[in-house]
Amino acid sequence: MEPRISIITLGVSDLEKSYRFYHDGLEFPTTSKPESGIIFFQTSGTCLALYPLDELAKDVSSTLLVDRKGFTGITIAHNTKTKEEVDTILELAAQHGGKIEKPAQDTSWGGYSGYFSDPDAYLWEVAYSDAWEFNTDGSLVIE
Amino acid sequence: MEPRISIITLGVSDLEKSYRFYHDGLEFPTTSKPESGIIFFQTSGTCLALYPLDELAKDVSSTLLVDRKGFTGITIAHNTKTKEEVDTILELAAQHGGKIEKPAQDTSWGGYSGYFSDPDAYLWEVAYSDAWEFNTDGSLVIE
Repeated sequence: MEPRISIITLGVSDLEKSYRFYHDGLEFPTTSKPESGIIFFQTSGTCLALYPLDELAKDVSSTLLVDRKGFTGITIAHNTKTKEEVDTILELAAQHGGKIEKPAQDTSWGGYSGYFSDPDAYLWEVAYSDAWEFNTDGSLVIE
Repeated sequence: MEPRISIITLGVSDLEKSYRFYHDGLEFPTTSKPESGIIFFQTSGTCLALYPLDELAKDVSSTLLVDRKGFTGITIAHNTKTKEEVDTILELAAQHGGKIEKPAQDTSWGGYSGYFSDPDAYLWEVAYSDAWEFNTDGSLVIE
């Protein structure tokens, strides 16, 4: 199997609301509209998609139990090129309906990071470290 | 905020077991070892990471409730360049401890897709459509 994640799909409770959060708020680019039933954002390498939660569950299996009361076990990280961006992005998310789950702080691994959650409580870590290198497309260099 | 997902982290119950599934089974490349406490796989654009579930929850907040009994609301898609690859990858996952949640089949949107789950029940869709175009790094062209 080629090592490639093509799309991350978040099952959302209100497609219009999530579209506004990611597109109007965080300024993720897309030509999709909520009326089309699914939103695709072009992000570096991996596409972020939003789709109604019930329909996403049904797409997997008609018997799939949706249970989203607690932490789902998945986090999405956005690694920044400057320390200041961490604060800026957390504030941006909070201004547009996200919630700061962990204010930006120095980490045990020598970086600086915080977490926000989106309108459906999906967790994003925003992190910076001066030890990181980036490829030309903005992706992290993993050694 | 730049539209970029740097890392997807899956909180796993058994790091060694998940490492074997993704590295030995699906052949995702990495120089990380389970002994290091976290695994980073270099995938196109977005890095896939494995980290113990309890520690990931603790990294967000000491009060975060872990609840992973049902569908978490997130799916990861791997889009293939041939229809045959969909079947091959589902079989590969099943041979290495994954579970086929939905056998490959024609879809309502004119494609061909199926789902497998990893050892922690995280869902991967493996999908093909002859309507898709790919960038040189293997990522989907999103219009």
